[in-house]
Amino acid sequence: KTYLSYFRFTQKKRFAARKVPTRIKGIYEDDADYEQQIAALRLQLDARQKKMFAHNRHAMLVIFQALDAAGKDSTLTHVFSGVNPMGVEVSAFKTPSEEELDHDFLWRTTTKLPQRGRIGVFNRSYYEEVLICKVHPEYVTKYQHLPEDLNKNPKKLFRRRYDSIVEFEQHLVRNGTHVVKFFLNVSKKEQARRFLARLDDPSKNWKFNEADLTEREHWRDYIKAYEDAINETATDETPWYVIPADDKKAMRLMVATAVLAEMKKLKLSWPRMSEEQMAGVERGRRKLAAEVGKK
Amino acid sequence: KTYLSYFRFTQKKRFAARKVPTRIKGIYEDDADYEQQIAALRLQLDARQKKMFAHNRHAMLVIFQALDAAGKDSTLTHVFSGVNPMGVEVSAFKTPSEEELDHDFLWRTTTKLPQRGRIGVFNRSYYEEVLICKVHPEYVTKYQHLPEDLNKNPKKLFRRRYDSIVEFEQHLVRNGTHVVKFFLNVSKKEQARRFLARLDDPSKNWKFNEADLTEREHWRDYIKAYEDAINETATDETPWYVIPADDKKAMRLMVATAVLAEMKKLKLSWPRMSEEQMAGVERGRRKLAAEVGKK
Repeated sequence: KTYLSYFRFTQKKRFAARKVPTRIKGIYEDDADYEQQIAALRLQLDARQKKMFAHNRHAMLVIFQALDAAGKDSTLTHVFSGVNPMGVEVSAFKTPSEEELDHDFLWRTTTKLPQRGRIGVFNRSYYEEVLICKVHPEYVTKYQHLPEDLNKNPKKLFRRRYDSIVEFEQHLVRNGTHVVKFFLNVSKKEQARRFLARLDDPSKNWKFNEADLTEREHWRDYIKAYEDAINETATDETPWYVIPADDKKAMRLMVATAVLAEMKKLKLSWPRMSEEQMAGVERGRRKLAAEVGKK
Repeated sequence: KTYLSYFRFTQKKRFAARKVPTRIKGIYEDDADYEQQIAALRLQLDARQKKMFAHNRHAMLVIFQALDAAGKDSTLTHVFSGVNPMGVEVSAFKTPSEEELDHDFLWRTTTKLPQRGRIGVFNRSYYEEVLICKVHPEYVTKYQHLPEDLNKNPKKLFRRRYDSIVEFEQHLVRNGTHVVKFFLNVSKKEQARRFLARLDDPSKNWKFNEADLTEREHWRDYIKAYEDAINETATDETPWYVIPADDKKAMRLMVATAVLAEMKKLKLSWPRMSEEQMAGVERGRRKLAAEVGKK
């Protein structure tokens, strides 16, 4: 058991935002130490993924959720940039299209699920359906075109969405996809600092959106929605990690360590050659050797 | 309650093949009567679908499963050919591709789910995963690349597949998709007659596949698999119809009647115009009238 277990939530462990830190010290000594650690982790992730790819039975779904400016995009980039791109696919989910709204709320992400042997990374996910939608229930009632009687009781609607998510993830687990979920937990103060930095630096101005400040006013509702979502959907097989996000480098190291720890739970093996396949190897070797005049 | 309720199975009513007929009389008097009835049903289906399309909140998933030569393809054609093709999409599922095998067993059909306002017709479906796969469990263990430990206990594997299917369909229902399932129930003798007809008629020879005769030898296993699948997955919200298939015309009339009855359960309404939209209609009318010189 490592320090990470403190930040790992399952059905046995309830998450309350006020009880977990948004900043953690002692993960790395200095920038050089960070670089060394992240590089080592990337090598291990890549090696593990290679075996997963060869084995071709397990898939891994890694979900990232966070409030604005928590560092979601840069964390993805830094953690997965060392892994063979054939083995990783990142899917980002923004405003849904009309076609997507005309399906059930799990449909659009399902089409992007990872194949066996691969890691699927979701930058936002179906969890938005119980996060932003719970803070703004009108997004459901106005835009999702549900039959009218399903819109009448929002409490029941979200209760059922948690059920759908839990059942869906258990189905994935039962069919070989390991599901790991990250909430990058930034403090309100640190968010303000990062927004300010975007305003002060002309090269980062494009990242600023005035609507972000409106969402910031719903901070408490968002935290409550995260607490509910995590407590309702964290299971032993599909855990949530709540990662302190105020120090980006510590966050990246923790995320990479957690992904690696979860990958190590998969029972991977290199494909074994059957006798028939071995005989084929032998035949092929002889045939080609004859052709190039060797024996 | 109509005669159809006798063939409609929910969680309260168990299906046993030996207790239901494969041939039924009295559905139509003669060919002319059949033509009149099916034409009337098509008109009603089309009218109902138009309203569903305008309402754009409910979708309908209609699944067809059957043993070989039961008349699945021709039934689909005859029942749905009168409905606006914008409102119906038929998807046929044959041997899965490598990409499909590399996902969970519900994935490939999920990508083809109907949008709100439409009818999605599945010619075969994810039920093959507990039908042909249950008769031939090696299709799962050899070709579906599941993690090894999930292959060890086939009984548990199929038990869990039923769970996944029930939970998945309940999720669809909760999100506005009505699910109706048909088993076209042909007798072993009638199948032999139809196979023979394919062999005797050169223009139908292409439909014959010698492997069909091998599958025929597994008749009892298939019937048992259908009984299990239907009893495990029929619910009040997602019923199964077991339609006598030995008389094709009677079968088509029964399927069309059942689809219509299920569509009538949807609470459909024509979209209501808001005052703002009505004002827009008025403005548009005035503007265009001025342009063409009318008032």
